[in-house]
Amino acid sequence: MSDIQIQPKDTPTLCIGLFGFGVVGEGLYKVLQQTPSLNATIKKVCIRNAWKKRNAPAELFTDNPDDLLEDGEINVIVELIDDATAAFGIVSQALSNHKAVVSANKKMIAEHFPTLLSLQQQYEAPFLYEAACCASIPVIRNLEEYYDNDLLQSISGIVNGSTNFILTRMQEGQPDFTAALLLAQQLGFAESNPLLDIGGFDATNKLSILLAHAYGITVSPADLLFAGIQQLQPGDIAYAHEKHCRIKLVATATRLRNGQVAAFVLPQLVAAESQLFHVQDEYNGVLIESSFADRQFFYGKGAGSLPTASAVLSDISALRYAYRYAYRKKYQQVPPMLSHDFYLQVYVSAPNATAIPTDRFTRIEERFTGKGRNYITGVIAASALQQNDWWKQEGISLIVGAAGIMEDVELRSIQHQSLTLAGVKAEN
Amino acid sequence: MSDIQIQPKDTPTLCIGLFGFGVVGEGLYKVLQQTPSLNATIKKVCIRNAWKKRNAPAELFTDNPDDLLEDGEINVIVELIDDATAAFGIVSQALSNHKAVVSANKKMIAEHFPTLLSLQQQYEAPFLYEAACCASIPVIRNLEEYYDNDLLQSISGIVNGSTNFILTRMQEGQPDFTAALLLAQQLGFAESNPLLDIGGFDATNKLSILLAHAYGITVSPADLLFAGIQQLQPGDIAYAHEKHCRIKLVATATRLRNGQVAAFVLPQLVAAESQLFHVQDEYNGVLIESSFADRQFFYGKGAGSLPTASAVLSDISALRYAYRYAYRKKYQQVPPMLSHDFYLQVYVSAPNATAIPTDRFTRIEERFTGKGRNYITGVIAASALQQNDWWKQEGISLIVGAAGIMEDVELRSIQHQSLTLAGVKAEN
Repeated sequence: MSDIQIQPKDTPTLCIGLFGFGVVGEGLYKVLQQTPSLNATIKKVCIRNAWKKRNAPAELFTDNPDDLLEDGEINVIVELIDDATAAFGIVSQALSNHKAVVSANKKMIAEHFPTLLSLQQQYEAPFLYEAACCASIPVIRNLEEYYDNDLLQSISGIVNGSTNFILTRMQEGQPDFTAALLLAQQLGFAESNPLLDIGGFDATNKLSILLAHAYGITVSPADLLFAGIQQLQPGDIAYAHEKHCRIKLVATATRLRNGQVAAFVLPQLVAAESQLFHVQDEYNGVLIESSFADRQFFYGKGAGSLPTASAVLSDISALRYAYRYAYRKKYQQVPPMLSHDFYLQVYVSAPNATAIPTDRFTRIEERFTGKGRNYITGVIAASALQQNDWWKQEGISLIVGAAGIMEDVELRSIQHQSLTLAGVKAEN
Repeated sequence: MSDIQIQPKDTPTLCIGLFGFGVVGEGLYKVLQQTPSLNATIKKVCIRNAWKKRNAPAELFTDNPDDLLEDGEINVIVELIDDATAAFGIVSQALSNHKAVVSANKKMIAEHFPTLLSLQQQYEAPFLYEAACCASIPVIRNLEEYYDNDLLQSISGIVNGSTNFILTRMQEGQPDFTAALLLAQQLGFAESNPLLDIGGFDATNKLSILLAHAYGITVSPADLLFAGIQQLQPGDIAYAHEKHCRIKLVATATRLRNGQVAAFVLPQLVAAESQLFHVQDEYNGVLIESSFADRQFFYGKGAGSLPTASAVLSDISALRYAYRYAYRKKYQQVPPMLSHDFYLQVYVSAPNATAIPTDRFTRIEERFTGKGRNYITGVIAASALQQNDWWKQEGISLIVGAAGIMEDVELRSIQHQSLTLAGVKAEN
C-alpha cells in the first residue's frame, strides 16, 4: 500500500474570458484588478452591445463569442448572462474547447444538468457554479467536500432571496405583495422575470442542483413538487402569526426511513425554534442534518451583485489549484431514489370552503369557516398534489404545516425532519 | 499557457491506526464499520490499558505506539487522546514516518503549530484537524478553501461549547456556576480539566488555529489577549439583561484600517440582532465577514462525541482524495501583522469602586456605584490589558461592550466589526 502523497499544486495563471458585464461582471472585473494575489486577469469581455460606454477600456469588449471561446490563451470562461439558452450554448462550447467554466446561471444548470455532467467528463474540464445556489453561502462546496459520506439525513433551506424579502415585508405589516416585489427588483435581488422567483421556479432549480450534490440525485426541476408564494393571502399571514410562526418558502430534501429521498419546494410554517425563522429579508439559510454532526446551519446573503460576485470569485480561486466537483455521491456511491411516496401535513385556505376538495385528503384535522376566510388542516399524499393542480388555482393557498413530512404507513412525522424543517416537534 | 487539467483523483484504501478509544474513538470505529463506501478500516488501536474490556475484538488493541507508527501498511494515524504532550509525540512521529494524520487536539496543535507546519512540509504528509475548531462546523476547511482570498474582514465566534452552555444556564435563571459546570461535564462536552474551558484557554487555542487559516498568522495562544468566564458575577448577568444583551465568550479576529489584525478572546455583550446572540447551550457559531460576501454565519454543535467524530470522519474522507491544507494565506500571500495597538470599549465591575484603576482607561463613559455592585464603562487600550492583569483579579470582571474594537486615533468603532461582533451599530 502506498503512502498518501501530497500532490504538488500548480497555481496556473488564469486567463479569463467573461460573458456579461452587468453589476456582477463589472464588480468581478474591479475586484480582480485589485487582487493581484489571485493571479487571474480578464482578457476579453463579450457583451451584446459592444459599442455601449462602460467603466473599462473599450478594447476589452467584443460582441463575438468566438473571440473568447476560440482564444487558445483564455483558459477560463466566466458566464454571467441572464439568457439561459444562450448561456447553455456558451458553456457547452467552452467545455468542449477544454476550458474551465464558472457560471451563476441556476436555470441553465438545472435544466441541462445531465448534458453538463457528460461534457465535464468527456472533455475533462472543470465546471464550477457555487454562485448558482445561495450566492455567497458555500453550500455546494460543503455538500460536495465536507458532507461527502452517506450520513446526510436532510437539507432544507431558504434559497431564494427575492421571495424571502417579499415574505418578510408582508409579515412585518406591509401586506402589499406588488409593492414588496417592486422594492426587491429596485434593490437588485430579483430575477429579471419575477415569475421565476415568486412562482418558485428559481428555488426549484436550486433544489435540483442541491439534490445532485447532497445525494447524487439527478432530477429535472419540472419533475419536483413545487409552488411559489404568489397564492398567499393576508389571511394566511394572519394564521401563521396566530400560531407564532412565519411562512417561508423552503426547499427540502429528506431521507425517508426506506432510504429514498423526499424533495419539494413549498411555503412552510416555520416556528421560532428553527434557524430558518430568523432568516429575514434577502438572506438565505440552509440547514443540513446528518447522523453524526447533528444540525448545521449556514447563513448569508443569497442574492445581490456582490454576494454573487463573491461566490464567482471563490470558484475562480479554486480553479488555481485545479479544483473540480467530483460528484462522488453520484459516481462513487449508489444514489438513493427520489420518492413521491410520502405524505404532507398541510394548511389549505380558499375563499369558500367548497373550493377545497376534502376527498383528496388522507385525513382532515381542523376546519375553519368564516367570512371570506376558510381553511382546513390535514394530511395529503404528495402524489395527490403532484397529479392534480387544484391547489395551485387562484385564491387557494397551500402551506406545509408544523408536522411536515409523514411516512406512508403510520402517518407519523419523521422525527429529524420535523425538528429540522419547521423547528416544531412532531406531535406523535 | 496550458489548459486547466482535471487531475484524476486516486481513492486509496485508508488503513488507519487509531490512538484513543474513548467515546469519539469508539463512535468512529462503529461508523467506519457501517460505512464501507468510505473505503477505510481501522487496523489497530493504541490505548493505555490494553487489557481493559471494550466493545471491539481484543486483537485490535495494543499499548505499544510503535505497533501503529512503525506499521508500513497503516497510512493514516487518527489521534484522539486527551494528553497534549503525548499527542504531540505521536503526531510528530507519524508525520515523520510519512503517514497522514487526523487529530482533534486543539491544545496540542495550537501550542506546536510552527513545528507541525514544518513537519508537514518536510515529510509531505497531510495533517487535518477540522474537529479541533468547533467540532462539526467545517470552519477550517471553509477558511482554507472558500475564503482563500485576502478579502476577509473579520471572523468572530463562539468556539467553546462548555462555556456557552454554562453562560446559557446562568442567563436563563440558574445562576449557580458550579452546578452548570458539573452538568456540562456530565453531558460530556467539557474538557477533562475544566479550567481549559472556563479560563478561556480552549477558546484561545482555537483562535490561534483560526488565525492561521483566516489570515495566515502564526501566533502562540499565550501571546493573545484572553480571559474566560469564571470571573463573571450575578450582577454582570443582570447588567447584560437590562441592556437586552447576552454575555458570550467570543473569539474575535478583525482587520483594522491599517491592514493589521486585532485578535482576542473575551466575554462580550452581544445584542439580539447578532447571530451570536442566538447561539445557546453547547452550540457553536462563527460569523465570517468579507468585503464581497457580506456576513456569513456557520452554526452547529461544537462539542460532544458525535459532532467531533463527524469532523474526524470528514477529514478521513478528505484523505481519500489526497486533500491537505495548503496554508495559502501563509505561503502564497504576505500575512498581515497581529496588532496590539487598538482600543476596546468595555464594562468593568468590581465589589468596590476603588478596585478599578480608572487612570488606566483612555476614557470613562459611565460610573455606577451601588450596594455590592460597582461598574464603569469606558475605553481602554488593548496593550494596557495585555501588560497588566489587574482585571483578572478575583471579584473583577471585564466584558467587551457593544461598541467593541476601536481604532487608535479617533477612538471610533470599526463599522464592520461592531456590526458583526456584537450586532450593535457603532455610535459614530
